[in-house]
Amino acid sequence: MNRDVAQKSVPLNSSRSRIHGLRLSLSKHRADALLVTHLPNIRYVCGFSGSAAILLVESSRAILFTDSRYTLQAREEVHDASVVIARHGLLRALGEMLQTGRRRGRLRLGYAPAQLTVAQKDALQSIAGARVRWVPAPNEVERLRAVKDASELILMREAAHLISDVWTAALRHIKPGVSELAVAAELERAMKLRGASGPSFDTIVASGPRSAWPHAQPTPKLLKKNELVVLDQGAILRGYCSDMTRTVFLGRAAGRVRELYSAVLEAQQAAKAAIRPGAKASDVDSAARKVLRRHGLVRYFTHSTGHGLGIEVHEVPRLGAAEETLLEEGMVITVEPGVYIEGLGGIRIEDDVVVTAQGAQDLTTASRDFLEL
Amino acid sequence: MNRDVAQKSVPLNSSRSRIHGLRLSLSKHRADALLVTHLPNIRYVCGFSGSAAILLVESSRAILFTDSRYTLQAREEVHDASVVIARHGLLRALGEMLQTGRRRGRLRLGYAPAQLTVAQKDALQSIAGARVRWVPAPNEVERLRAVKDASELILMREAAHLISDVWTAALRHIKPGVSELAVAAELERAMKLRGASGPSFDTIVASGPRSAWPHAQPTPKLLKKNELVVLDQGAILRGYCSDMTRTVFLGRAAGRVRELYSAVLEAQQAAKAAIRPGAKASDVDSAARKVLRRHGLVRYFTHSTGHGLGIEVHEVPRLGAAEETLLEEGMVITVEPGVYIEGLGGIRIEDDVVVTAQGAQDLTTASRDFLEL
Repeated sequence: MNRDVAQKSVPLNSSRSRIHGLRLSLSKHRADALLVTHLPNIRYVCGFSGSAAILLVESSRAILFTDSRYTLQAREEVHDASVVIARHGLLRALGEMLQTGRRRGRLRLGYAPAQLTVAQKDALQSIAGARVRWVPAPNEVERLRAVKDASELILMREAAHLISDVWTAALRHIKPGVSELAVAAELERAMKLRGASGPSFDTIVASGPRSAWPHAQPTPKLLKKNELVVLDQGAILRGYCSDMTRTVFLGRAAGRVRELYSAVLEAQQAAKAAIRPGAKASDVDSAARKVLRRHGLVRYFTHSTGHGLGIEVHEVPRLGAAEETLLEEGMVITVEPGVYIEGLGGIRIEDDVVVTAQGAQDLTTASRDFLEL
Repeated sequence: MNRDVAQKSVPLNSSRSRIHGLRLSLSKHRADALLVTHLPNIRYVCGFSGSAAILLVESSRAILFTDSRYTLQAREEVHDASVVIARHGLLRALGEMLQTGRRRGRLRLGYAPAQLTVAQKDALQSIAGARVRWVPAPNEVERLRAVKDASELILMREAAHLISDVWTAALRHIKPGVSELAVAAELERAMKLRGASGPSFDTIVASGPRSAWPHAQPTPKLLKKNELVVLDQGAILRGYCSDMTRTVFLGRAAGRVRELYSAVLEAQQAAKAAIRPGAKASDVDSAARKVLRRHGLVRYFTHSTGHGLGIEVHEVPRLGAAEETLLEEGMVITVEPGVYIEGLGGIRIEDDVVVTAQGAQDLTTASRDFLEL
């Protein structure tokens, strides 16, 4: 591979209104300009999907800095920002513009401290000089991205349908004697054959004792009879992610396993039922935890209940115990309680849902019935 | 997928000598400690492959900070550093240790400015207070990583053999009527079926006019007769990457296409012939460029000749026109000249080689003959 590998493309949707949305945060921070450095944020705001870019949003203009590899692509993708093709590095081009900008006096520059390295800041500072006053302005684009618009929801529904289809079609590969890696390979192949640009994360296939590790990666281990298998998979379709987990049993399960499965499913249903505009993210998490507590299983539920989903596979909000964010119509989140019992195995059921005025609506549709294969 | 997905595992090799190697850089920078934040660097130095970690190397001890998800994994993987399980965030645990460290007075802390965000530095500074004096010490681990030891070379040879085998086995899928995405799907499936944990980057399959884009991602476009197809693929095997490109023609190629192909192959051979311990990285690049210039093709060669390869798919050194690095025995690099002609298509041939006393030795072995399929 050479260094010029492009990122996955995201369709351009209403970049004008997104740039406008960002401008509102300028006044909130009393900033003259906002620096956007995180590539998924740049894609979201102005549509550019190349792998080298910085976006500067001012009150009257927006400027995308990229390099000569992306001249054509920027022309095609970017409509509501002017494009600067930097000949000697993006930071230098940006720094020079900041230094010679139209305003006199100091320039208050909003930036996300978690998305700028010390090296980048030092370089900008040494070029733009004392003129720049750095103003921390974290999560401004992330907040916009959390609420999906109609065109995004269409894409996310398609990405979710795709992964549901992939799952159903791949069921025949989930059987004793096949390796975890081979099942993952079939799942990822099926995604691409249906038009996905790729998996949205490394597919998880964890069988037997390994299913009790929530973060197990697939290995050459063969699936065996009388094992639980946790399969966690997602696809990127035209720039948007899906993310779905199902758990199956190979053979005829003991009563205990069936009970665990229905407790997890009940927890998932309770979490979904708690979802509505205005609910706190932490309330969704507690709804799931409450059910598992009643079943004496809450100590086996070792991660948060879900997370936002979109251009990236992990976005805000996080559905955790300490998360104060209020859910809003149009947010897309995963709901994925699980229990992980050493020796016995793990069970997780995960769907992608959109928050609507009527509550959670499932995007992923594959059956949640307990499958004994 | 939940947030706890682990990274690919890297086998533990001689972490003691690697920590020792890093200590030499302490005196170079007159630093009391070196901060390692980049996960592939942490894996390299102490063997830990989890997704949340910071490593602190001092002259008399090394300390790995991680969280409770990784207690067991750290115990298993880390032998030459002590492990701190941080209860309230890695930065806080590290900051408190820096603040209360054994030394009196200021502590000179070496760090890589390109691998620390402003937010991380601010957080550390506010916890550790004025005691820390920040000393930029970039690329120290990268320099060690560039030269592979014997156990790494064994793994890299295996990863390269694997991708060569995958390529040969996948040839039958490269034919008119099959989509680019379907070919990529078959290649990535074949990697996993041979034990790879996954591709080392998104496989590139670019056909017809799209082969002239060095960074084209596979699309649903069907392969057609009389097209060039560039296929760039790599696999991760036990933590180490391979990266190989081949270009084929569907049908019987015109004389011009054959000439282009042999010019690129000649350029690749010239670049390989220029590789020896002590040669400058830029000399390898010029050797390839000189051949293409003689064929009147140098303006179609729009990227650098290659790059280092190892735990990551892009490491130092870069084989570019301005790269002064001297090659050393044990470095593993790609050699991948290409020409990209709008309208006609692109041709790239890429191998992974190890620098030996006798010159470049190929790790990837798939045939470089011009294939008309």
